[in-house]
Formats: sequence, C-alpha cells, structure tokens
Amino acid sequence: MNQQLAVGIDIGGTNTVFGIVDRRGNLLSEGSISTRAHAEVPLFVEDLYNALSPLIEKMADTGEVKGIGIGAPNGNYFKGAIEFAPNLPWKGVIPLANLVKDAFGLPVVLTNDANAAAIGEMTYGAARGMKDFIMITLGTGLGSGIVANGELVYGHDGFAGELGHVIVNTEGRLCGCGRYGCLETYVSATGLARTMRELLDTHQTDSRLRGLPPEEITSKSTRDAALHGDKLALDAFEYTGRMLGQQLANFIAFSSPEAIILFGGLTKAGDLILKPTVRHMEESLLEIYKDKVKVLLSELKESDAAILGASALVWEMKD
Amino acid sequence: MNQQLAVGIDIGGTNTVFGIVDRRGNLLSEGSISTRAHAEVPLFVEDLYNALSPLIEKMADTGEVKGIGIGAPNGNYFKGAIEFAPNLPWKGVIPLANLVKDAFGLPVVLTNDANAAAIGEMTYGAARGMKDFIMITLGTGLGSGIVANGELVYGHDGFAGELGHVIVNTEGRLCGCGRYGCLETYVSATGLARTMRELLDTHQTDSRLRGLPPEEITSKSTRDAALHGDKLALDAFEYTGRMLGQQLANFIAFSSPEAIILFGGLTKAGDLILKPTVRHMEESLLEIYKDKVKVLLSELKESDAAILGASALVWEMKD
Repeated sequence: MNQQLAVGIDIGGTNTVFGIVDRRGNLLSEGSISTRAHAEVPLFVEDLYNALSPLIEKMADTGEVKGIGIGAPNGNYFKGAIEFAPNLPWKGVIPLANLVKDAFGLPVVLTNDANAAAIGEMTYGAARGMKDFIMITLGTGLGSGIVANGELVYGHDGFAGELGHVIVNTEGRLCGCGRYGCLETYVSATGLARTMRELLDTHQTDSRLRGLPPEEITSKSTRDAALHGDKLALDAFEYTGRMLGQQLANFIAFSSPEAIILFGGLTKAGDLILKPTVRHMEESLLEIYKDKVKVLLSELKESDAAILGASALVWEMKD
Repeated sequence: MNQQLAVGIDIGGTNTVFGIVDRRGNLLSEGSISTRAHAEVPLFVEDLYNALSPLIEKMADTGEVKGIGIGAPNGNYFKGAIEFAPNLPWKGVIPLANLVKDAFGLPVVLTNDANAAAIGEMTYGAARGMKDFIMITLGTGLGSGIVANGELVYGHDGFAGELGHVIVNTEGRLCGCGRYGCLETYVSATGLARTMRELLDTHQTDSRLRGLPPEEITSKSTRDAALHGDKLALDAFEYTGRMLGQQLANFIAFSSPEAIILFGGLTKAGDLILKPTVRHMEESLLEIYKDKVKVLLSELKESDAAILGASALVWEMKD
C-alpha cells in the first residue's frame, strides 16, 4: 500500500512504450502509443496522458508513483530535452520533461536511452551493487552509459558516453555522423552486416550468404550462417569482436570499471560475439587490468529493459 | 590561528618534496629528502619524519594540520599503497599511507601523481569550480586524472586514468609497458624527441638538428629549433599535436568534460603544442562537442604543483 512506484517511458522512433515498476523491477502494468503518428509534440503528450494516466490511477491501491523517468534518443539529462534526434518526428530541441511534468503533475527525469539502460542494469540487472561499470548497447548503432563512483557520468553538458563515436580508424568507414571510422560503423548490428558484405566482396571463400542480395545480408542472417559453421560469417564475428575488444581495453584505461555490460540485438549471438570480444580485450589490456574486468550480458529481458531503465531514473532522483 | 592546513608530499624517483599548504594554495613551508638514497622504506619514512615534523611543529601558531596527502608514481588510492613502481627504489607493494600515518599520527591519503595534479588544479588552479575535466600531464610519459561529477574517477580498483596507455595504433611504437602504439609513445617529451629523430631519418629536409647525436635530439632541442622556424621541428610538433588532438576528441566522447588541462614539461612549448592539438581536436570532434571544450594550460607553478596537488587530497578527505 505504501510502497513507491516509478513510471518508465521509452520513446522509440516508431513506438513509445511505458509501464509502472516497483522497487524490485517488477513491471506491474504497461502500454504503448505510436510515436511516429504524432508529428506535433503537444498532441503526443496529450495521447500519452490519455493512455498512461488510467494505469497510474489503477495503481492507487498498490502504491504511490514517485515520478516519471523517460529514456529517449538524444535525450539530455540536464536540459530535460530531446535535442535534434534524427529518428524522431520532432525537430530541434523538445523540452519534453517539462511538458510531461505539466501534464501529469509528477516529477520527471529524462536522459538518453543508453544511460537509462545503464541505470536499469545497476538497479535491477547485471550491474546490481556495482559502482563502476560501462554499459554498451549494440543495436543499429552503439550506445553507451558510463557509471563511475556509483553515479552516471553525464559530463559537463549532459552528452557524455558517446562511445559509438570514438574514432578507431581515421581512414575507416563513413559514419552517419559524417565522420570516418567511428566504432559503431564496425561494432553494431549494421556494422556486422557491413563487415559480412565486405568479406563476401573481397574473399573467394564459399559461404551460405554468397549470391544473396545485399539487403538480405543482415546481422541475423550472418548469425544464422555462423551458427551453421559458415567460415566467412565466423570471420565477420571475429573481426567485430576484435574491434570491440580492442576499444574496450582503451575504455578500461579510462575508467577502470568492474564490468562491461553488453545489451541489444547483436548480443543475441551469445558466444559468437562474446568470445572474440573478451579474447581481444584481454590481449590488448595493460597488465594491471588483465583478468579483472568482467564482460557480462544484460540480465534484463529485452522487451522490458527500456521501460525498466527509464523507470530506474526515478529512484536516482534527488528528493 | 584556527585555520586548517594540509601537508603535501610528492614522491619522485630522485627526490621527495613536501610542504605545508593553506586552503588557498599558499605554500607556507617546504623541504625535501632524497628518495633514491633510501633503499629501505622504513628508513625513508624515518628520515621523512625527521625532516617534516619540525616544519609541522613550527606551524602550530598558524593553524592545525588536518592531514597528509601523498602523490606517488603507481600510487593506489584505495589501498594507500605504491604498487610495482618501476622508477622507485622499492619493489612490490608498499603500504606507504599506513607507514606515514603511524609515524605522524595524522590521517593520510595517497594517490598517483597525475590524480594528485588533477585535484590540485581543481582546488587551486585552472579547474577551480569545474566538476568535469581531464588533466593530462606531459612529461617523460603521459599521465592523466579524470574528474566527473566533481569527483576523481578512481575506478573499481583505483587504477582509472591510464590514458597514456590508450592504444592509438596497434602496429605503432613499442611502449615501455611492452605493448605497441600507446599514446605516450607519441605524446610526451620522449615521444616528441622520438618523432623528431624519425623525421630526420626519413626526410631530406635541412634542419638545425641534422647531424646531432641522437641523445642531443630531445624535446628541448626540438622546441628550440621550432622556435627558430625549423621546418622538421615544426612538423614534429604538428604530428604530436595531431596524435594528442585526435585522442582528446575520443576522450571527450567518453566523459564530455568542460575542459582539458595540460601540465608538464612538454607544455613549456606553449602554442607550438597547443595550437595543433586544439585544431586537430576540433576537426575530430563529434558535432555536439565542437567549440565547447576548453584546452587550458595548468595555472600552478611547476615547481610547486606536485606539493600543492598532494596537499589538495587532504581537503577531499571524508571526515
């Protein structure tokens, strides 16, 4: 009756999902609305209120909602705003935290989705009890959230943790950001597929994926091929793991974390990506860090993780 | 009379310097003993006590010493120990903080010299009032101390901030750590001299340093030549600034600092190193970070900075 609850909202390019979560990470209630169908932010907030506030009212007997956490692409924690998100229908700077606060009359905290994932993992998942770790999300791109001294590192302006845009090769692949050689052009679902296509183009080796149209060479088809022992697909994972492992070794020299937590679509490949990553990381580490840093897969169910992560922001709020 | 004072001790390979500092960073009293002449740690602590305790006693009328801060190579904050420092006479793990605490009967905190420099800069120098910055010390090697959310990032095991050992080129120069391509093999006084020697070997361009024996091609002679407009020496600074600037751009993607503070022998070259560093950093930065991050030279006098940095650790102590 007196327990505290938190609302988590995850804004994606297509849909916005939300739910009500207790202190232990149980998702008590959930729902969703379309993001894409709302070209206007005020209408989006109105529909969000209409869909979510009945869930909050129904929880009145279970506990009291302490606040609302929002995870969003290009979310800025300090400003409570979404800034120039390329995959959302809203352009420019959107002060979403204030808009949602005004609608619901509850405290609201907003950050980017990878930071929310890190807080979620610290609160309910594989990083429980850890004060120093790095969260890496491997989806279309590579996102990251860094925790040091038990706190999320937001940096001076709220934009810390863009590890997908660490440049690993100044003459490397063209990135969506306009620069060359960013880590996420190699290490992401998209990067893996790009590596597989390159290997097919530059090698004669037979492969289950040879002859397929480029759009069918995806991280999923590469994984399926690798699971059938396809040599080139295995090479693609080895290369991806090497690029990731070498950079993890550099990240460790920065913040000396207890663990690296991996999350997202690419981690469905399990040992295919984990083993080469850990091997190359250990080979690349400075002596003092060797055999100390755990590389763990997220413990949160992927379908719930975004809501859980956003809700966990609420527990971190300063009262 | 009632003001608080802090003792700072900086342990170098040759000498150990110490002093008593007030809250505003005034060095009220100082002294030194040889490090190298003390093969045995207990005798080192005894001589340190004999030299330093009279200074503390003389300060009794001025204020009360709150504690002792020690900066040392390979110093581990959590353990209060110096661990496997290659340039000190003592091998293995030295629990120096406890030994000094037992001798003086005062609280003691110990960390590595670059972390101490970062705290010193935050307390008395160019980073006053900043909560997020990165300190880079450019001497024989490249040291670093990272401050995020107003706190030094020690990491899980106290070894965070080894940015000199970020690998920038897996097929690059052999580093003292046994690996290849560490940043400090390029960006340090030693790295600059190495670059100058390589440029002389691989280019026909005339230079003031051509024909000199290799040991006379140092960061200082390279700086002198560059100040006289020597083309190859200027190229050496350009190359060093490019290597540093590109990596600063990556570090910024990690912790999004308000400023980078540069300290140490190499920074005596002033604009020779600062200008190419900033130019390449800005060219390499992700759009959201451009024209935001200051690159500043330390504001602490080099001769006092090590003592001030160590003393500043005392003000950070949890009571």
